[in-house]
Amino acid sequence: MNKKNLLIAQSGGPTCVINASLVGVIKEAIKNDNINTIFGAINGVDGIINNKLTKLELSEEELDLLSLTPSAYLGSARHILSRDHNDEEHNKILSTIKGNNIGYICFIGGNDSMDTVDKLSNFFLSINYPCNVIGVPKTIDNDLVLTDHTPGYGSAIKYIANTIEELSLDTDCYEKGRVTIVEIMGRDAGWLTAGSKLASLNGCGPDLIYLPEVPFDFGKFYMDVERIYNEKKKCLIAVSEGLKISNGQYVLNAFSNDSHHDKFGHLQLGGLSQILATLVKQELDLPTRYIELNLMQRCSSHIASSTDINEALSSGAFALQSVINKTAKFVSFVRKEEYQISYELKDVKDVANKVKCVPTDWIINGNDVSDEFIKYALPLIKGEVKHTYQNGVIKYLKRK
Amino acid sequence: MNKKNLLIAQSGGPTCVINASLVGVIKEAIKNDNINTIFGAINGVDGIINNKLTKLELSEEELDLLSLTPSAYLGSARHILSRDHNDEEHNKILSTIKGNNIGYICFIGGNDSMDTVDKLSNFFLSINYPCNVIGVPKTIDNDLVLTDHTPGYGSAIKYIANTIEELSLDTDCYEKGRVTIVEIMGRDAGWLTAGSKLASLNGCGPDLIYLPEVPFDFGKFYMDVERIYNEKKKCLIAVSEGLKISNGQYVLNAFSNDSHHDKFGHLQLGGLSQILATLVKQELDLPTRYIELNLMQRCSSHIASSTDINEALSSGAFALQSVINKTAKFVSFVRKEEYQISYELKDVKDVANKVKCVPTDWIINGNDVSDEFIKYALPLIKGEVKHTYQNGVIKYLKRK
Repeated sequence: MNKKNLLIAQSGGPTCVINASLVGVIKEAIKNDNINTIFGAINGVDGIINNKLTKLELSEEELDLLSLTPSAYLGSARHILSRDHNDEEHNKILSTIKGNNIGYICFIGGNDSMDTVDKLSNFFLSINYPCNVIGVPKTIDNDLVLTDHTPGYGSAIKYIANTIEELSLDTDCYEKGRVTIVEIMGRDAGWLTAGSKLASLNGCGPDLIYLPEVPFDFGKFYMDVERIYNEKKKCLIAVSEGLKISNGQYVLNAFSNDSHHDKFGHLQLGGLSQILATLVKQELDLPTRYIELNLMQRCSSHIASSTDINEALSSGAFALQSVINKTAKFVSFVRKEEYQISYELKDVKDVANKVKCVPTDWIINGNDVSDEFIKYALPLIKGEVKHTYQNGVIKYLKRK
Repeated sequence: MNKKNLLIAQSGGPTCVINASLVGVIKEAIKNDNINTIFGAINGVDGIINNKLTKLELSEEELDLLSLTPSAYLGSARHILSRDHNDEEHNKILSTIKGNNIGYICFIGGNDSMDTVDKLSNFFLSINYPCNVIGVPKTIDNDLVLTDHTPGYGSAIKYIANTIEELSLDTDCYEKGRVTIVEIMGRDAGWLTAGSKLASLNGCGPDLIYLPEVPFDFGKFYMDVERIYNEKKKCLIAVSEGLKISNGQYVLNAFSNDSHHDKFGHLQLGGLSQILATLVKQELDLPTRYIELNLMQRCSSHIASSTDINEALSSGAFALQSVINKTAKFVSFVRKEEYQISYELKDVKDVANKVKCVPTDWIINGNDVSDEFIKYALPLIKGEVKHTYQNGVIKYLKRK
C-alpha cells in the first residue's frame, strides 16, 4: 500500500479540549494502515505555509496528559488564506505538502478555520493533488451551524456555571449587597452566557441573563435591576460581551470610541460590564461591581467536562477515519434523545463563516433562558475529569 | 453544671474555608459538656447588635457539605464597633448576650474582625460579665501577624497558581502573543500575588511578579516587559492591586480621580491591570490584555486546598476548646519543620489592625519571589477536595 503522511493543525482561540481532539486524531492515526508519519503544523496554517512541522511522537502517557491540557499544543494562528490559488502562499503550501508527502490533513478549529479547510481542500481538488482535508470542530462559542454543539463549549459552561454558583454564594453574604455584573464571552451568540443558567439548578443562578440575540433595552434593563435589588438587596447579572442595541450596534461601541476590528472583521470587545456597572450606578444610584470571566472561560481545564473531553477524543478519531477517503468535509455532532452523540460528515462550505445563535424562543422576557436551553446544555457539562496534581498544581503537557 | 450557650459569627470578606472554620467550631461544640445551644449571628456583629440569631442544628451530612462551601454561611458584616461601652450599640449587644444566655463567642474573621474580638472581650471584662470571646483567623490575604498563615490563603493561591498555569498555556499559543497583565488581590501585602509563583514549579509561572512591598518603578517595569517580550514574544505579568510608588501612593490613584475609602479607611482598589495595560501599549507599543482574578480568588472552592479545609476545621475545634476558659485571644497557627501545624492562643490586641507583609528579602530584583516563598507556600496548597457534583455543578450548602 502507498502510505502517506498525516498533518494535523490547530487554529483559532484555544479551548480546554482542542488538545483532546488532537489526541483523538493521533491515537486513531497510529492504528491506521494508510498513515506513515504523523506531523503537527506549528501555529496552524502559518506552519503549513512556512514548512514548520513537528513529528508527533508522543508516549501513551504523554497523550493522556495532553488530552486534559488546555490551550493549543501545536500553537494557533489567525491567518486567513487568500482565494488566489496561484499566489506565493499557495506555492509554499504545496511545497510543504509535497515535500513531506502529506496525503491527509485534519484541521481542528472554529468558524474561521472551517473557511481555511474549505479553501485548502478546494485548492487541492482544483489542481488535482491527492490530499484530503477534514475539519474537526472546536470553539467554546458553540456558534457553528450544522452540528449539535462544538467541543470546548461543555467545559466552558461547566466553568461558567460553577463560577456563577460560587459568585452567587459570595455576593450573597452581606445584608446589603451590590449589583454584580458578570461579563461572559460571545460576540454574536449567547450560548456561553446562557450557560450561567445551569447554576440555577442548584439554586445559585444569576438573577438576570442578557444575550446578544435579543436587542438590549436600557430602560427595561434598569427596571429589571431595580426590581430585583429592591426585593433581594443584591442582583447578580450575566451579560454577553456582544450585547447589541436595536440598530445592531454593539452596546460597547455606543459608549466607546476606540473599537478595533481584528483581521476577520470581528470586533474586539471587552469592558462592557464596566460600562454597564457605571451606568447602573449613575441611573439607579446602587453599589455595583463588574467581573470579566475573561480567558479563564476557555482554559480552565481544572474543571473541564469529561463528556466534552471524551467527545473531543472520539470526534478526532472519527475525523481520522474519514480523512482517508473524504475531503472538504467537517465532523458534525449528531444528538440522539437520551443524550447520545454520533458523528457525520457535512460539507465544510456550508459551515464556514456562518453563525448559529441561541433560538430566540429559548430566551424569556429578554432577561432569562428557558428549560429548553437547560435540557440542551445540561448533558454537555456532566462528568468530572481526574487530573494529576504535582505540587498542588495540575500536571499539563507543554510542547518543548 | 451551669451550661451556657455558644454564639458563632463570621465577618469580613468571605473565603473558601470560613465555613470550614464554622463547622470545626460546631462539631467540637456538639461534643462539649459546657455548651447547651449553638447559635449563629446573622451578618456578624450586626446580628449580635440586632439580636438576629439562628440556631445551628445541622445534620452531619449538612455540616460536611458546609465545610466545602465558599462564602460566609451566616452572612458577613463590615460594621466597626465603637469604643464607648455605654452607647446604645453596647446596650443592645449585652441584651442579646444576656437574653440568649450566651457564655461563649467564637468570632471568625480577619484583621478588622480581630478588632471586634478585642473590643467585645474588653467590654465583657470591663463590666465583669461572664462571656468569653475568641477570634478564629480567616483571610485570603494572609496578612495577619503572629500566625504562620491564615485559613483561606491556601485555597486562594491554589486557585491563583492553577489559573496562572492555565493562562500561561493559553497565552503561549500564538507565535506573537501579548503582554498579559493579571491583577491579583492584596491591598498592602503581596502574599496572594506571590502565590502565582507556584505555577513556575510546573514550568508555567508568570514572567514577572510585582508586589506592593517594594515601590513600583515604572522605568524598570517598562524595561522588564520589553526585555521579556523581545525574547519570548509574549509576557505574562502578575501584579498586586495594591502596588505603590515610592512616596507610598497607590499606583492606581496616581492615574485615577475617583478613589474611595471604605469604612475601615482601606482604599477600594480595582482597575490597576487596565491602567498598566494602557501604559504598556502607550510606552512600548505592544499588544496588551488585562485580566482581573476578582472575587473568584476568594470563592473558587471547586479547587480548594484540602490542607486549608482541614486546618480551618481543626483551628475551629481548637477555638471552641479554648473559649471555655479563655477570652480576648485568637488562634495562632504554629508551623513545625516538615510541615505540621499546631495551634496556640495569642492576645487578640496584638493582632488587630496590624499587617504582615511578604519579607522583602523574599522579593528578588523587584519582579520575582524567591525559593523561600515557595518553601513557605507550597505545603498550603497541597491536597485536593472531593466535591459532590449535582447536574455538573458542585453541591454546596446555602442558608435557607
